[in-house]
Amino acid sequence: MDEVVGVNPASGERRALGLRESSRDDVAAAGRAADSAATWLSGQSLSWRADLLDAMAASLEADGDEIVLAADEETALGSTRLGGELRRTCFQFRFFAGVVRDGGFLEASVDHAYDSPMGPLPDLRRQLEPLGPVGIFGASNFPLAFSVPGGDTASALAAGCSVVVKAHPAHPRTSLLCATSLRRAATSCGAPEAIVQLVFGLDAGIALVEDPHVTAIGFTGSFAAGRALFDRAQARPEPIPFYGELGSVNPLVITPLAARARAQSLGEGMVASVTLGAGQFCTKPGLLFVPRGHDGDAVLDAAKEAVAHAAGASMLSADIRDRFNDGVTRLLSVPGVDVVARSAPHESASGAPSVLATTDVATLVGEYRSTIETECFGAVALVVRYDGLDELLASLESLEPALTFTLHAEEEDPFGPALVHVGRGKAGRVIVNGFPTGVGVSWSMHHGGPLPAATSSLHTSVGATSIRRWLRPVSYQAVPDEWLPPSLQEGNPLGIPRRVDGHLQPSSHAQ
Amino acid sequence: MDEVVGVNPASGERRALGLRESSRDDVAAAGRAADSAATWLSGQSLSWRADLLDAMAASLEADGDEIVLAADEETALGSTRLGGELRRTCFQFRFFAGVVRDGGFLEASVDHAYDSPMGPLPDLRRQLEPLGPVGIFGASNFPLAFSVPGGDTASALAAGCSVVVKAHPAHPRTSLLCATSLRRAATSCGAPEAIVQLVFGLDAGIALVEDPHVTAIGFTGSFAAGRALFDRAQARPEPIPFYGELGSVNPLVITPLAARARAQSLGEGMVASVTLGAGQFCTKPGLLFVPRGHDGDAVLDAAKEAVAHAAGASMLSADIRDRFNDGVTRLLSVPGVDVVARSAPHESASGAPSVLATTDVATLVGEYRSTIETECFGAVALVVRYDGLDELLASLESLEPALTFTLHAEEEDPFGPALVHVGRGKAGRVIVNGFPTGVGVSWSMHHGGPLPAATSSLHTSVGATSIRRWLRPVSYQAVPDEWLPPSLQEGNPLGIPRRVDGHLQPSSHAQ
Repeated sequence: MDEVVGVNPASGERRALGLRESSRDDVAAAGRAADSAATWLSGQSLSWRADLLDAMAASLEADGDEIVLAADEETALGSTRLGGELRRTCFQFRFFAGVVRDGGFLEASVDHAYDSPMGPLPDLRRQLEPLGPVGIFGASNFPLAFSVPGGDTASALAAGCSVVVKAHPAHPRTSLLCATSLRRAATSCGAPEAIVQLVFGLDAGIALVEDPHVTAIGFTGSFAAGRALFDRAQARPEPIPFYGELGSVNPLVITPLAARARAQSLGEGMVASVTLGAGQFCTKPGLLFVPRGHDGDAVLDAAKEAVAHAAGASMLSADIRDRFNDGVTRLLSVPGVDVVARSAPHESASGAPSVLATTDVATLVGEYRSTIETECFGAVALVVRYDGLDELLASLESLEPALTFTLHAEEEDPFGPALVHVGRGKAGRVIVNGFPTGVGVSWSMHHGGPLPAATSSLHTSVGATSIRRWLRPVSYQAVPDEWLPPSLQEGNPLGIPRRVDGHLQPSSHAQ
Repeated sequence: MDEVVGVNPASGERRALGLRESSRDDVAAAGRAADSAATWLSGQSLSWRADLLDAMAASLEADGDEIVLAADEETALGSTRLGGELRRTCFQFRFFAGVVRDGGFLEASVDHAYDSPMGPLPDLRRQLEPLGPVGIFGASNFPLAFSVPGGDTASALAAGCSVVVKAHPAHPRTSLLCATSLRRAATSCGAPEAIVQLVFGLDAGIALVEDPHVTAIGFTGSFAAGRALFDRAQARPEPIPFYGELGSVNPLVITPLAARARAQSLGEGMVASVTLGAGQFCTKPGLLFVPRGHDGDAVLDAAKEAVAHAAGASMLSADIRDRFNDGVTRLLSVPGVDVVARSAPHESASGAPSVLATTDVATLVGEYRSTIETECFGAVALVVRYDGLDELLASLESLEPALTFTLHAEEEDPFGPALVHVGRGKAGRVIVNGFPTGVGVSWSMHHGGPLPAATSSLHTSVGATSIRRWLRPVSYQAVPDEWLPPSLQEGNPLGIPRRVDGHLQPSSHAQ
C-alpha cells in the first residue's frame, strides 16, 4: 500500500501523514465495525441523535483553526473561503439536528383498523428506519462541506446510520483532522467511535462500494469516477443505492429585456460566478446564453473586461489544473468556438487562467456537441449567442440535464414562462435573477438532477430531504403499542408530525 | 414475431388474440408516444388527474363482468377471487385519486428569503414532479391488481406519468381488455390514448427497459427475471430506477405461549394462508417456526390435518405448476427435510397439490440453506421446529430479508419485543397475530424489503407512498409567483399541505 501524502497545490510541497493507504482487510474491518455501530445507533432516541449532531458541530468549531489551516495548505482555497465553509459545515450539522428533532423525516403514518370497501383492514403503522452503514466519498472542491464532515455524513448520521468515509486524496490531513474531531464528539456522547470511520486510497474506495455491510453510497465527484463506482454498486449480489452528485454544464440565459436593462452588472455577475473558487463548483454556469445584437454585445463586453482583469487562481491540485487546461484546449479546438478573453494564469504550482469563449447555436447543436457539453471543471465558460425565443428554446431543449438552470429576466418578461418550463424539465434547481454557485442548506433545497448531473434524479445531496437517501420504510401490522417504536405509539409520545387515518397532523412541539 | 396466445390453465385450451408480439420498433413508437403523452399530462391540474383516476375506476367497473370472465379463463383463479380483485383494483384507483387531491405527495416546501447564519438566503421552493414515461411489467398472480390496471399503473398515473405496460404472457386477453377500458376512460377525460399503452412479448419487455424515453420501471415477478432486467436498466447510458418486487420466503413464528393458547386455530390459519390462491402470493408464509414439544406438536397436527384435506388447485399455468413441482422436489431432497402432509393434486391441466414439510434449525442454517431459502411459488411451506428463544433468534438472524415477518404471540409474551426487533431489521412489514397474505391499499402500507424481496428497499410497491417512485424534486429559487406551479405559489391556491419556513402546515381542505 502506498503512503498517504498531502500536497500543497500552491507550493507543490509534499507532506507525508505517516499512514499507509487502507487495504481490503482494513475496509472489511471498518465495514464490520460500522455494522455494529449502526446497530447501536439505531437503538438511540431521536433527541440523543440530535444532541450528537450538535456536539459534532461544536467539536468542529473548537478544532476550527487547525482544520482551516490544514485545508488551506492542501487546497489553496484561502482561509476566508474555508472559514466560511467551516461555518456552513457546522450550520449543516445543527440544521440536521433540527430535522431530527422535528421528526417529520420519519414520515410516520398511523392507520387505525377499519372496515374498508375491501373488508376489514388491520391497524397498520409505517415509518422510515435507518439503512445501516453508509459509504461516503469526499469531494475535492469542498474539503469540509462535501467531504468528511459534509452533508452526506451529517444526513446519514441524522438518519441513524454509521458512516465510513473514503478520504479525497487532495486533502488527507484535513480529512483526518475532521474525522478525529467528529469521533471525539461521538465518544463524548457515549457513542462508539466507529460511527465515523475513515479509509484512504483508490482501492479502498472500490472495496467500500463492494463491502457486504455497506448499505448505500454517497459520492460527489466526476462523471467518470461516479459512473464506474455506480456500476460496481449495481453489480453487487445485493445492489445498493448509489447517490452520485456528478456535476454538469449549467446553462444560464439572459433574455433580451434583461440584457437591455443591466448589461454591465450581468456581464460582471456571470464572470464572478464562473471564476468563484477558481471555477471549481459543480454549479458553475458553463453555457451562457446571450442574445445577439447591441444589448447582448454590451453584456459580452462587460464579461470580457471582467475576465481579462480576473486574477486566476491556484486549483485544487496540479492534476486538476492539467485536466482543466486539457478541457479548455479541447473546447477551443471546436470549429466555431472562439476564445474572447483569458486572464494571466495564477503564479503558483497549480495556477490556472480564467477563460471566456463564444459560439453560436448552430455550433452548440452541431457535430461537436458532446465536446461542448462535457463539463470542464475550472474557470471557463462558453457564451452562446442566440437569435430570438424559438432558437433559444430549441437549443435549450437539446441540452443534457443539469444541476441548475438560471434565467435572468425582467418583470413580465415574455421569455419568462417558457424558460421556467424548460428549466424545470431539465434541471434540479431553477434560478431567476441570481447565480447558481452557492447551494444553501435548507428545507427546500434540491441539489441534483437527471444524469449526467446525478446518478439518480430522485434524491438531493443537499438540504433536509437528503436524509431520505439513507432510510427505508417498515410497516407494523397490529403490533401491540408497547412493542412499537415510540414514534408510532398511539399516544405519539415524541409529538412528531404524523399522518393519522390519512390526515396529516403537524407536530405538537411548540414552534 | 410470435402470435399472442392465451391459454386456459384448467383446460389447456389455447386462444389466439389475432395479434403478434410487439417488435423493437413497436416499443420505440410506444416510447415516443408515451413521451408526448407525459408532456401533455404534466400540464394538467391535480384535480383533473384525480378525476381521471376516478373515471378509470368507473370504466373498469363497467367492463367488470367481461374482464373477470376473461381473467378466470386465463388464470383459473375463480370468479369470486377475481371479482374481489377487481373491486380492489377499482378501490386502488379511487384511493390514488384521494392521494392526488390531498396533495401531500408533492412534498411542497416554501422557504422565504431570510438572513441565515450563512448570510442572506434567497426565496426557495421545492416540490416533486413527474419523471416521465414509466414501463410496467404485469405479474402473473394478480391479473388485475398487480397487472395492467394495477398499483404500478395507478400510482404512476397519479404521479403524472404515462405508462407502457408489458403484458404478462399468462393473461394477454385480460391485459388487452383492461388497457382498452383504461384508454376509454382517458379519452373520455380528454387525455391522449397513449397515456396507457400495452406491449406483448419477452423481447418487447427488454426493449422497454432499454427505451430512451422510459424513465423508470415497475416490475412484479421472479427474482431471476427481475434481476436480469434490473441489470439492463442499470447498464443503460442513463440508468433508470428499477423497482422490482420479487418475492421472498416469508418467516412466520409461533411462540410457545401462542402454541399453548391456540394450537388448532394457528395450525389451520397457517395452512389457509399457505394455500390461499394455490400459494401464488409473494407474501405466502414459507418458513413456519413452531416450538418443539407438546404444544408445537398440536399446532403441527392441526396443520397436517388441514393440508391433507386441502383441495389443491389449478396453478396459473402449466409452466408455473412444473416449476412448483421442481421446487418441491428440490426442497424435499434436502437431508433433514421430511414431507409430513400432501393433498391430492387438483384435477386440471395445471393442477398441483398442497405440501407441508418439516425440518429443524440445524438443517435450516446448514449446507442446504440456499435451497431452503429459495422461494417456491405455490402451496408449500416448511415447518421449522425450534428450542427456545436463543435458537429461534439465531436462526432468524441468519435468514435473508423478506417482504413480511409474522409473529403469533400472547399478551406480554416474553418473546415479543425481541422478535419484533428482528422482524423490523429483516422485513418490510411486521405482522402480529395475523397472516401476511393480504396487502391492503392504504397510507401506511409498505410492500417491499431488502433484496431478495425487492431490488430497492427504499420504496413500496403498494400504498400511498408508492407514488414517490415516479417523482423527482425540483427547486425554484426566486422565481416570480406567476411563473411558479400553483402548488408552490405564495397564496397556496390548491390548499395542499406544505412545509413553510420549516414548519409543516396541514391541508386547508375540509377534512
